[in-house]
Amino acid sequence: MHFTINKSSLVYALSHVNKAVSSKNTIPILTGIKFEINESGLTLTGADSDISIQIKVPLQAEGKEIIKLFEVGAIVLPRYVFDIVRKLPADEIEFKKTEKLSIFIKSGLSEFRINGYDVDEYPEIQAVSDKKSFYVESSLLRTMLRQTTFAISNNESRPILTGVSWNLEDDILKFYATDSHRLAVKEAVIENAEEIKISGLVVPGKALKELAKILEDYDSRVKIVASSNQLYVEVDNIIFISRILDGTYPDIPRIIPKQIESEITLDRNQLIDSIERASLIARDSRNNIVKLVTLENNLVEISSSSQELGNVTELVEIHSIKGEDVKISFNAKYVLEALNAIENDEIVIEFTGALSPFMLKSVNQENLLHLILPIRTH
Amino acid sequence: MHFTINKSSLVYALSHVNKAVSSKNTIPILTGIKFEINESGLTLTGADSDISIQIKVPLQAEGKEIIKLFEVGAIVLPRYVFDIVRKLPADEIEFKKTEKLSIFIKSGLSEFRINGYDVDEYPEIQAVSDKKSFYVESSLLRTMLRQTTFAISNNESRPILTGVSWNLEDDILKFYATDSHRLAVKEAVIENAEEIKISGLVVPGKALKELAKILEDYDSRVKIVASSNQLYVEVDNIIFISRILDGTYPDIPRIIPKQIESEITLDRNQLIDSIERASLIARDSRNNIVKLVTLENNLVEISSSSQELGNVTELVEIHSIKGEDVKISFNAKYVLEALNAIENDEIVIEFTGALSPFMLKSVNQENLLHLILPIRTH
Repeated sequence: MHFTINKSSLVYALSHVNKAVSSKNTIPILTGIKFEINESGLTLTGADSDISIQIKVPLQAEGKEIIKLFEVGAIVLPRYVFDIVRKLPADEIEFKKTEKLSIFIKSGLSEFRINGYDVDEYPEIQAVSDKKSFYVESSLLRTMLRQTTFAISNNESRPILTGVSWNLEDDILKFYATDSHRLAVKEAVIENAEEIKISGLVVPGKALKELAKILEDYDSRVKIVASSNQLYVEVDNIIFISRILDGTYPDIPRIIPKQIESEITLDRNQLIDSIERASLIARDSRNNIVKLVTLENNLVEISSSSQELGNVTELVEIHSIKGEDVKISFNAKYVLEALNAIENDEIVIEFTGALSPFMLKSVNQENLLHLILPIRTH
Repeated sequence: MHFTINKSSLVYALSHVNKAVSSKNTIPILTGIKFEINESGLTLTGADSDISIQIKVPLQAEGKEIIKLFEVGAIVLPRYVFDIVRKLPADEIEFKKTEKLSIFIKSGLSEFRINGYDVDEYPEIQAVSDKKSFYVESSLLRTMLRQTTFAISNNESRPILTGVSWNLEDDILKFYATDSHRLAVKEAVIENAEEIKISGLVVPGKALKELAKILEDYDSRVKIVASSNQLYVEVDNIIFISRILDGTYPDIPRIIPKQIESEITLDRNQLIDSIERASLIARDSRNNIVKLVTLENNLVEISSSSQELGNVTELVEIHSIKGEDVKISFNAKYVLEALNAIENDEIVIEFTGALSPFMLKSVNQENLLHLILPIRTH
């Protein structure tokens, strides 16, 4: 194994695979990054028990030489090779395997010899069949993840709720995320996916957060292959693989109320600001309880009180109201997170009763829904 | 107590006093901020056991009305009044005391009533005599703090070393900071301070870090009054007071070596980069040990090795060398912090023997000195 490589190309590639690697992994070789060089380029792989990220740096790109290859080979290097590469002084870095488990790195007047791991002991990435593959634009997938992932559970007592449920049927991709107190549903139309049906494939939230970070760097089409035990995502020269959570996801369509008692439309930012202020008093209580009451004159009152701190009353103008008067209490955190996930400036809240779930939606936009359970305060 | 105030003026003032206030203080009233309004303006005070910060907002500034005063008064409000004020919707905020320990706050359609503390129970700020007062430019004081404070001890076993020692004699202000492994000395000429002598006044490092943050906002002359039990600093409309540490500071002038065996000059940034890279291997060891050895051909070798990780060798060009060859080991953290505190691009290292302290200085600049104890490696 012997090659030289352009520093910035290697830094960029390592910054991506590094996201999958934790120095705390109990399997020592997984605290490292796999380097594999051959005539098709340098392939870097990082993995933990949930995800693998693989990126390929070609020998040339856009007519410019990135890698000079002298001898093919492979080794697993400790994660801090990323720290070393970032700080090296010259634009070109030379890698040369001197012994089976040791590599020599040279750049300018700086020379490192670092110990690695046996590449034969690194887990193989499973091949995928292309049977269930479809394509999504990177920006759309990013939006879908941003609008749902925040609503998953952080509580390991029901592991299935720590992931986002992926569903695809009749060309419609649906994401569900819930922690049993609130639910986010996002759907989008996918082209040329008639043949594919995915039902309740639950991808760990932690993996999706890493995927979202990777997608930020790419504005291209993303290939997705779903199988029963893994989710495979390919964008540009990166492959991202996540394991799937075991278990059965709740039957979400059954949970969403069909009967609306009343609905109000109002300005999203005004509502966010009011609830944030009310939350300064409310956060003193265990559930961060804020109350919403419709008043005369097209106003809602947002309020909260605490015996220790004091109380707060906010008035917000309503754009329109239909149905009965509303009086409801909720956890401010859930409502704020849902409002922040909505992109439209005008939102509608649909109520189904003082102790029944209420829904937050964009006006004129049916593909995003946030459902929240109220809190009983008496 | 009843007044209205411009929001941004109040936010700015609260952001400063807030730095002195901790929600963890065991004395409940010190978790709050004192508000006192009268014909001269609104005075805000925040304090903990080490420091007090007081700021005055005048009724008018530059011909513009900032405060409309209806009734004088005072109250201590919980620290989160800062969070409330920041988030209020309108440019004007009304404060009105409704009961002895409760205040009504109104801005736009937002109304708060919050519980406070009895102002009579808030500790008085001690008056200072002007006897030992002198003036320093804010930018100079900031530099002096930045170049020394990092070298104090974080270890409470010798409390006196957790502060910076202030000394003034013959118009020269000297700061000393040491954790017993390294020492920083910075001096500056002060005008019109002939009459004043300060000797070993040790100000807590934590207080000086807050003072440095305050000084960032002011480019004016700073008034300093030192007494045996407090340091009083006044800049613009802010008063900052810190307690003084009890105890006797080490006799620093006696520690600084007079006899130099050899000295090398070299580029500060090249040396920083090399030691940072060497430290990637060295940080594996307890003391972050990096070795420096002078070679032929005007080069120094910076190196480190770890049985587990591997090793690193760096070459750095020397601009000039005087005296004997050098071979010395040190804690990379100490040398990097000292180098980062020096502003000049060319530095000189003065050696007094393999096991004796070495000194880092700017070339042609005698008012800053960093002294570091080497590590015995054999």
